[in-house]
Formats: sequence, structure tokens, C-alpha cells
Amino acid sequence: MTHKIAILGASGYTGAELVRLIATHPSMEIVALAANSKAGMAYEDVFPHLRHLALPDLVKIEEIDFDNVDLVFCGLPHATSQSVIKALPKSVKVVDLSADFRLRDPEEYVKWYGGQHDALECQAEAVYGLTEFYRDDIKNARLVAGTGCNAATGQYALRPLIEAGVIDLDQIILDLKCAVSGAGRSLKENLLHAELSEGYHPYAIGGTHRHLGEFDQEFSAIAGRPVKVQFTPHLVPANRGILATVYVQGDAQAIYDTLQKTYADETFIQVLPFGKVPSTRHVRGSNFCHIGVSGDRIEGRAIVTAALDNLTKGSSGQALQNANLMLGEEENAGLMLAPCFP
Amino acid sequence: MTHKIAILGASGYTGAELVRLIATHPSMEIVALAANSKAGMAYEDVFPHLRHLALPDLVKIEEIDFDNVDLVFCGLPHATSQSVIKALPKSVKVVDLSADFRLRDPEEYVKWYGGQHDALECQAEAVYGLTEFYRDDIKNARLVAGTGCNAATGQYALRPLIEAGVIDLDQIILDLKCAVSGAGRSLKENLLHAELSEGYHPYAIGGTHRHLGEFDQEFSAIAGRPVKVQFTPHLVPANRGILATVYVQGDAQAIYDTLQKTYADETFIQVLPFGKVPSTRHVRGSNFCHIGVSGDRIEGRAIVTAALDNLTKGSSGQALQNANLMLGEEENAGLMLAPCFP
Amino acid sequence: MTHKIAILGASGYTGAELVRLIATHPSMEIVALAANSKAGMAYEDVFPHLRHLALPDLVKIEEIDFDNVDLVFCGLPHATSQSVIKALPKSVKVVDLSADFRLRDPEEYVKWYGGQHDALECQAEAVYGLTEFYRDDIKNARLVAGTGCNAATGQYALRPLIEAGVIDLDQIILDLKCAVSGAGRSLKENLLHAELSEGYHPYAIGGTHRHLGEFDQEFSAIAGRPVKVQFTPHLVPANRGILATVYVQGDAQAIYDTLQKTYADETFIQVLPFGKVPSTRHVRGSNFCHIGVSGDRIEGRAIVTAALDNLTKGSSGQALQNANLMLGEEENAGLMLAPCFP
Amino acid sequence: MTHKIAILGASGYTGAELVRLIATHPSMEIVALAANSKAGMAYEDVFPHLRHLALPDLVKIEEIDFDNVDLVFCGLPHATSQSVIKALPKSVKVVDLSADFRLRDPEEYVKWYGGQHDALECQAEAVYGLTEFYRDDIKNARLVAGTGCNAATGQYALRPLIEAGVIDLDQIILDLKCAVSGAGRSLKENLLHAELSEGYHPYAIGGTHRHLGEFDQEFSAIAGRPVKVQFTPHLVPANRGILATVYVQGDAQAIYDTLQKTYADETFIQVLPFGKVPSTRHVRGSNFCHIGVSGDRIEGRAIVTAALDNLTKGSSGQALQNANLMLGEEENAGLMLAPCFP
Repeated sequence: MTHKIAILGASGYTGAELVRLIATHPSMEIVALAANSKAGMAYEDVFPHLRHLALPDLVKIEEIDFDNVDLVFCGLPHATSQSVIKALPKSVKVVDLSADFRLRDPEEYVKWYGGQHDALECQAEAVYGLTEFYRDDIKNARLVAGTGCNAATGQYALRPLIEAGVIDLDQIILDLKCAVSGAGRSLKENLLHAELSEGYHPYAIGGTHRHLGEFDQEFSAIAGRPVKVQFTPHLVPANRGILATVYVQGDAQAIYDTLQKTYADETFIQVLPFGKVPSTRHVRGSNFCHIGVSGDRIEGRAIVTAALDNLTKGSSGQALQNANLMLGEEENAGLMLAPCFP
Repeated sequence: MTHKIAILGASGYTGAELVRLIATHPSMEIVALAANSKAGMAYEDVFPHLRHLALPDLVKIEEIDFDNVDLVFCGLPHATSQSVIKALPKSVKVVDLSADFRLRDPEEYVKWYGGQHDALECQAEAVYGLTEFYRDDIKNARLVAGTGCNAATGQYALRPLIEAGVIDLDQIILDLKCAVSGAGRSLKENLLHAELSEGYHPYAIGGTHRHLGEFDQEFSAIAGRPVKVQFTPHLVPANRGILATVYVQGDAQAIYDTLQKTYADETFIQVLPFGKVPSTRHVRGSNFCHIGVSGDRIEGRAIVTAALDNLTKGSSGQALQNANLMLGEEENAGLMLAPCFP
Repeated sequence: MTHKIAILGASGYTGAELVRLIATHPSMEIVALAANSKAGMAYEDVFPHLRHLALPDLVKIEEIDFDNVDLVFCGLPHATSQSVIKALPKSVKVVDLSADFRLRDPEEYVKWYGGQHDALECQAEAVYGLTEFYRDDIKNARLVAGTGCNAATGQYALRPLIEAGVIDLDQIILDLKCAVSGAGRSLKENLLHAELSEGYHPYAIGGTHRHLGEFDQEFSAIAGRPVKVQFTPHLVPANRGILATVYVQGDAQAIYDTLQKTYADETFIQVLPFGKVPSTRHVRGSNFCHIGVSGDRIEGRAIVTAALDNLTKGSSGQALQNANLMLGEEENAGLMLAPCFP
Repeated sequence: MTHKIAILGASGYTGAELVRLIATHPSMEIVALAANSKAGMAYEDVFPHLRHLALPDLVKIEEIDFDNVDLVFCGLPHATSQSVIKALPKSVKVVDLSADFRLRDPEEYVKWYGGQHDALECQAEAVYGLTEFYRDDIKNARLVAGTGCNAATGQYALRPLIEAGVIDLDQIILDLKCAVSGAGRSLKENLLHAELSEGYHPYAIGGTHRHLGEFDQEFSAIAGRPVKVQFTPHLVPANRGILATVYVQGDAQAIYDTLQKTYADETFIQVLPFGKVPSTRHVRGSNFCHIGVSGDRIEGRAIVTAALDNLTKGSSGQALQNANLMLGEEENAGLMLAPCFP
């Protein structure tokens, strides 16, 4: 059985990544691609790398007949996303890639994103999309909220450790190094090749990055008490990849054992041998996440490192993995592409 | 039915690319990976991006039981390749990625590669591996000689034009821009990131690049008289890609029509609308080749541009496409991965 | 004696490059920096790499007291440039970096740039700014028109050869590879790091690039008859650099001798030993241009290669070199910085 | 007066960087360039970007007449460096760029570098080369030991804070992001463009990087008690630059005030306005170090960020700054080049 798929916000990088992955999916057919600003264009004129595929032209969202759609991937900007999803027929399953339905507490939404949430009834039914930890809920969900790409990376490193109680909850520092496609197809001076290449810098320093809302929500829920991490992202001159270097206090071996046990049966989360470190280049273009654990020379300190591709495991690959679950397909369908190196 | 595959020279980039492609191939199983200098190592220690695959450890070639192998991909250096292939049992099919069996005239081999050829009897049965032009011979071949990656790119642009007689055979200039993975995993100062990135230069200037041997052989055979092209490659700071800018004299529309007609039914060779230009970024990681044709402001001049990924369509993808034909599989099996952009 | 300098269009890359070079100039003082869209900002907020310099804040052009200015560098967009320069007091010397005063024939301006020229009286007095060939005129000029960066590169390779009559004037092909800073600080999708890096492509193909107007004007004047070259630029993933690969028909040794003799006493134009090729990485950040000559395997063909930094020798370095001449300073003042490698 | 300079180990990147800087130095003349493996070569054949300079050919160290040399820059590998420097006449001043004379305690040398130190008598007279903190000793030194490039970056961020007692000495985490030229011109697979570009990873994780020896020595001396920091370097795909993100516990404003006061009169160490972050791209090719301070959302935590160019302020620029002091020249001579951006 072939599922009919629509992608809203298809002219951005996460949209293109969904099309790339679905291209070899055995049971999905893309029936609509929407991008309001580029409606009317052939998709190959927006993304020439996908010209070999038979794809519908870009349309406006209101031109789509949603009765003919089984599942929608929604890659719209936050705030826009909530009003669009609110208006969709309830018969359509939705995987949202925006930030709109990630935070369960409306006040947290206001705090991190500003402005009132306009679709709280949808928020109430939304399932947080970190597949490996919400798998059963996702299977039964109509609306899944894709996680932030940084938020996913940090959670893969930390959730099992907080759950197991093997680290000091008040001494967690996440230093993230993000590639530029995470910023989307935004026209900003600092994202130009001439400015970004050959240089790197921190941003959203001091605990101001919005993905902290997700960390706070998830980590506090697991711990059963407030947990606040320090989180500093950096922008590095590469296109795909997130590398989290997580500084924790606890026994390195216990940390390693906890992570290895947690992910032993997971296809996409791979724990490296103790002391080995991951690299973003080794997950590029794939749905895999590599995790490493090392002890520090200072007793009782450890470093957990995690690498994934922000466009794949960090957003569109995660979205497809969730869609597979929602549609009753093999969870891995369309996602076993090996990383592209060099 | 699953075909048993061995890869010799598996520690280089073309070896890793073969493993990447075969990872999602429906009917191939890798039973042996050989790399003499790294024999004994786990493959994931050489290429950590492929760690999710169940693969045999690296061995020496002489450790392989070739009775248990249906087809060998041979990615060894030239000269080494001929002596290894010569010694293989005749029951094994071979796709060679080296230069050893590309030139039919032994004197041409000596001229371009130096030293006598040591396996002329194998040379005699080898089929030149440019799939779209040698398809029937490849289906029946035991030994296929993969083409040079630059040679493939130039031939996709020029073969139909020479065949059709629509260009001046004495005024052909190929200006190629090659990415660095074409140089292999060689430890040379000029291939270091610190030296290569942020700069570019011509090399093998003046008609000294070995792939000219292939151009001479193939173009002269098509034309029925000697054809010598000018060919200047340049090394650019990117990892994957070849872009050929081919300057020809002839009618641009006739040139376009010829190319379009020739490739109308080819899956992997895509002729863009007249006047459009290809980009290496739009074929990255895939088996596609994009071709563009433009007229110049000077009457009677045209520019043909062609882009492909040197590791895929230029070598390992081509090799797999040929192997599919030799084994009676779908020609496209394992090769429909969409390009990875951004 | 210190010359008082104003830079108009100071928020672009050529503006920043002028400031970088003037930073170590012994006899220039920057008294005004103008950029209408960013007027009021501190210069270090626009270009933090220049924060160690004591510089005036950005202002609007009309805020500048030009009585207090000896020389203006004008890095505004074309068309804007002509109306601004027209309005400047005649006591101020001007080096224009735009295209507005490069073409002496008003019809050629209309043909390549569209729209009527609005300052033909200024055009009449403008001197074309290719220093090595217009040195004496530049010394006495009030208004110098900086050349196109591609136009400069091609002319360094070809002018002496056309002058000496050692090449076939009807068989000249310039294949250029340009780095991205040549496109300026423009917010375009294809200039984003995520899109540009790791890929390359031709643009303005078929004889449509505006710098052809300069080639036509200059080469025809030298030859005493119309000369039309083929010119195809390519955009490569690097920030600084232009590499011209020029295919000509003529005797390689005569070509080499001509270039070497022409540039023997030039500080910035360096002819490499015969057969050697230049690289953009070896001129990065400097005012040098490296030129190589090689013969082809085809008798009577040669390849001339030239590399320079588009922001330095291709625009701002050239502009400073011209300003030095106009102000009676040492031609090389502020320009002897060695290239920055790696 | 012109000082006669010899550079040993001139075929590496720090050697080339010294030549680049000295190129515009008003009172230094390079009289000898040594590189044993490339002795006999013209320097322009090793570093074509410096071909415009009149430089001596490369020689072996033993060919140099040190009676004719005022100061030697020694850029040899550690261990080699000590035996060479030991044998130099005492009349020659020496700036060593290796690790050999950085650690005052011979046991620490053995611990971090392995093997006995062979020139302890030279070690005894060596001054640690962090200019801003050892300026007076350097002026009178015969032998100065250049610091590690990572060690310099971390110390600029932390020394004043430890001295002032405004941070918790037991909770210091340095997360460093290093560009690839710091690894030198070494032929290693992971430094190839095809491998390094487009990916990044931690290395020497867990407190094993040798520059920790310098941190331990210096920080403990300042504090008057043992101080051990956590230090994790990462390799990012850029050529020049070190970015330190330093996580400390203390009052952010007090930290900011301390740094600003310490560096108020320093030319090269620039403290940015509170809350601003530095970027490696804004110090590229220059001797400047930019420092930023931000508070975290967690009370009592702060982040200090520091960026410099590893080849300039991190090694060769520092070396030249020290040599200027040793020779009685202006400390800034040859070092005021503005950063090269874009």
C-alpha cells in the first residue's frame, strides 16, 4: 500500500531532505509540494539535484486537496505552522518540523518563542518526536512534533544518564558545534560563503538558545525535579552536522554502560567503543547518531560526545522515522542510506 | 539470488564508495574486503561511516577463497591491478577500476603509463566500461575496464557529437575542474586541507594527463580518423565532482538536439534545457550526470558542460552499474540514491 | 604629507579591503567612511576584523565635507556611482571601483549595462585603471575607472600577446574560475555557504558576462581591428581568487618571451618559469598576479594561466596602486603585504 | 640597524609565517633558511606565495655561519629542537617555537613528552614566551620558549581571572576549536582535504593533550596551589584559528572587569564589549586576540571566549613579538597587519 504524502514548506532544506529520503522509500508517494513564495515553479527549478524524480510542481497550501493526503510533513516557520496545522482536516496525520508543538507548557512557549500559542488544542494532542523515547506514543499519534536538531543531539547523550541517576544534575555543560544548514535557507550576511567559511564563533551564548526550552522540559520530567543545563552552540564552516561535547560529573564507566545498554537494540543510535570519539563526517547524509564516552584526567568527570546530521537524524530523517511508525510501516524504511564520505 | 562480491583495494575511496552503494543493493553480499596494507583491521576502523554494516574484516588478497566469489571489484593501483587480475580464476567476473585495461593498444599503454603491460591476454578480452556506449558488450563480458573519471565526463559530452559529425574535430578544448577525492587517499602536501582549501590551480597542463589516452582511443575510433583534443584539468577545493567545460565549434542547436536524442532514454544522463548549466553540487553522491549546451556570442561556437560525481558515476557507481549488467540484475539496482544537497 | 581619504560604499568587501590595505599605508588617513544603508554604525560593528583601527563611524555620503578630502574611493553599485561622482567637487581625485567609467563608448555602456549613462562628461575624462598599461595617464588623472576583476586577469594574460602579434586573434578562449567574494556581499541563495561550498558551476555562459565589454574595447584598440574573445566564468567554492586559463594559438616560446619581457620590471606581475602554473592560493590577500605559460601537445597551441586575488589586485589593491600614482606616492606603498598562506 | 635572522625548520607553516611577517618588517633581514629535508631547494619552490621576496635558498643547519646571525627562530620538532639549540653559540639569541623549553620542571617534560630532556642547562635560562605576561624577562632573555598555540589562547582567557581570584579554580572547562594548520604540514589521512573538510571531531580527549602541561605549570604558579583544568580540543575544517570557549564559575561582571583592566593597554589583546563574542574569521592572518565575556542564565556561571590565529598570535607572530623585545625594537614592528577578511 502506498501512502500519499504532502510536504508543506518544500522549498527549504528540510523539505528537500524529505524528498531526497522519500525518493527511495518503498511505500510513499509525494502527491503535493507546497511553498507559497515559490508556488507555480517546477521543483527542479528550486532544487535541481532532484530533477530525476517525477514530482508535482510547487503549489500554495490552499491548493492542496487534503482528502487525497494520508500524511503531511510540515516544514513551515514557527507560528505559521500552528495556524496551518490547526486548519488541516483531522483525518490527516501530521509530522511537524517546526518548534510549534514541542513545548507542552504554553507559558514556556511564550517565554522562548514570544506571543501566544494559537493552536493549544493541537498542542494538547501532540507527541514529542524523539523517536527512540516516545516510540509507542508516536505509533498512535495524529500529530507529532519534531524536535529541535540541537535538542535531539543533547538528549541522545543525556537522557539515559539522567534517567539512571549516574551524573550530577547541576553540573551539565553542553558545548555544541553546528553546521550551517541548521540555519535554513535564510539570506543573512553571516551565512554567506565568503563570511562563514574559514571561520567559526559561538552564538546564542549565555543560555538564550530556544532549544533550552526542550532541554528544560524533557530533562526535568525525567529527573522529577528542575534540571537546567548550560548550553552554548557554535557555528562551524560545514554544511551538515551537529557535534555535542557534553561535560558531566559522574563515573565514566557507569555512564558508558548506561548508554550502551539503553541503545543496544537501536538501529540508528550507535555507541562507539569506550574512549572513541565520533565525527560529524561519519554520519553525513544519514540517519545515524554516533555517541562516544571518555573519562577525564580529573577523577569523577566524563565527556560524552554525540554526532548526527542535523538535516537527517536532526529533522527530516527523524520526521520520516516517525511517519513510518504512524503509518504502520517498517520504522527504518527509506532511512538505511549509508553516510556519504568523503 | 544474492551475488557474492569481493572488493580488492577496499581501503581507498572507491572501495568505500562501492560499500556505500552496495549497502542498499537488493541482491549483493560483500563476502571479502581486501587491502594488503591494512589487512587484519576491522572495516569500521578504516571507514567509521560504514560501521552500521555487517562487513568482513580486511584481509590480504591471497586469503580470499575466490571459489566463493561471483564478482570482484578491483580498486588497486595500476600495474598492480594487472598482475592480480591475471591470477584470478576465470570463473570470477571482474570489474576493474584501475587504468590497466582501458587502452586496447599495448603501445598506447606504454606511452601513457610506462612499462610493459603484463596481462595482455586479459586486455584482449576486456570491455571498456562506459556503460551507455558499451552496454551489450558489458552484459557478456567477464572483465570490464572502468573508465577514467575525467575520461567518462568528457566522453558523455563529446561522443554523440563526434559520432553525429556536428562539430569540428580539430578544435575541441576540454577544460575540466576536478574535486580532490579523484586524487585518492594519497598523502601529498598539496592535498592537505590547509593547502588545498581556499585555492585552485591547473595541473597536468599541456596535454600530459593520462586520461588523454582514453580520449584519443575512443574519439578516433568513433570518427574513423585520428582526433586529438586539448585537455586541461584543474584541482578545485571540493571533495566530489567533475565539471567539464567543453569548447566546440559547430551549431549549438544541432549539438543540443544530438545530445538530447542520444540520452533520451538514459536514466543517469540528463540533458538540461537549452542554455541551462549543470553544477557539481546537484549530482553529489549520486550516479547522475547533468549536461548543458549553450551557444556562444560568436557564431558557430558552442559550449557543452557536463557534471558528475567522480566517485560515483565517475568510478564506483559506474562499476556497480556494469556489475549489474554482468550479473543479469536491473542496471539501476543500488544506484537510484538522490544527490545529497546541501 | 598625509592624504585625506574618503571611502564611499564602505560596507562592502572592496571597502573593507581598502581599509585593510590603508591600515599600514604610511601616508594616508581615512577621514570618512560612507554607506547609506548602515550610516550611524561604528565600522567595527560592520567589520569586526578592523576593530583595532581608529576609524570614523559610517555616515551618509551627503554628510561628508569633501573640502577636507584629497581622494575618494568609490565602491558603489554601477549607475549609482555615476550620479555620485558627477556631483563631487572637481578638486577631489576619484578612484571608482564600479563599472560606470570603464567603457569609453556610450553605446557599449548601454549594450552591456542597460540604460543611458548619466555622467558622460566624467566618462570623457576617466582613465582606464589597469595600472601597468595606463600608468602615465593615471598619474595625471582626476578620475580613474577601476577595471573589472575578471577583465584585469584576462588582460594581464593577453594584452602583450595581442600587442606583439604572436597569437591568432580569432581563436582566444578564456575559461575563468572565480571565487565568491567577487559577487560582493549580496544576499542570494546561491552564495550561501550551504549552497556554494562543495560545488561549482559555470555562469554567464555564452558570451553574456559584462566584462566582455572591457575585453572588446581594450583588445580591439590594441589590435587595431575588432577582437572578440570567448569568455566563460565559473564560480568555485573559495573566497578570494581568480584563475584564468587562456587557450591561444601561437608559438608557446614566443608567447612566454613576450610576457616575460613585458613584465620584467613590474613588481606585481610575476611570470613563472616556463611550464609552471600559478595557483590562487599563492596570491591570496596580496597585490600580486602570477602568470604561467605552457605549450600543448598539439603543435601551435599554448595555454596561458594567470592568478590574482579579485579583492586586491582585481579591485581594491589596484585602486590603491592607482591612488598612489595620482597622489605622487610610491606606487607600491601599502601594497607589499605577502600573500597569506595557508 | 638591521638584525640578521636565521630560521631553522623553514619548510613548515610556522617558518613560512615568519617569512611572511618579516617581509614587511623594517629592521630584519633573513640571512639563512634551514630545512634539512629540503636543503638545496629555492624557497619559492617550497612556498610559491613568497616568490616575490629575495630570500636565500634552503640549507642544512650545519651550513649556517652563526657568527653572522643575530637571532634564530627555531621551528623544529620537539626533541630535535633541544639538541640543535644546545649546540648554538651563546652569542646568538634564540626564539624557539617547539615545546622543548616550555616546561620548567624536567619531570613534567618527561610526563608529557616522554624521554629525558637533553638540554636542561638551556631550559634553566629559557623564558616562557607569553609576551604580555613575561615582557620584562623576555627583553633580557637569550632563549625564549614560544608557547603552545592552544596554551596561549587558554591563558589569555584565564590568567587574569586566576590571578584576581574571581573564579572557582576547580571548575574550569576549556572547550577549544582548532583549525588544521595547527597540526603542521604533516602527511596524515585525517588532514587531507577530502577527509577534514565538511566534518569535525574532538581529539586528545580526556585530559591527554600536551598543552595541559603548560596550563598546569602556569595556572598553578599564579594560584599558588595546584590548578587542574579540563581541556578538550576539537579539529574544525578551517585553516587558521583557535576559538576557546571557557566555562567558569564566578561573577560575569567581575570577570569582565578583570579582563578589561588587565588588557586595557595591550595592543594585540582586545576585550570586546560585554556579551559580544569573538570569531576566528576576525583575527585571521593577524596578531590580534579577541576576548568576549558573557554571563549564563545560571547564576554564578560565565563563559569567556577567546579567538586568535594559531599561526600568528599562537606561534610565529608571538615569536616575532618576542624577538622585537629581545632586539630592542618596537614590540609591534611587522605585526600590525590587519586581519584578512573575507
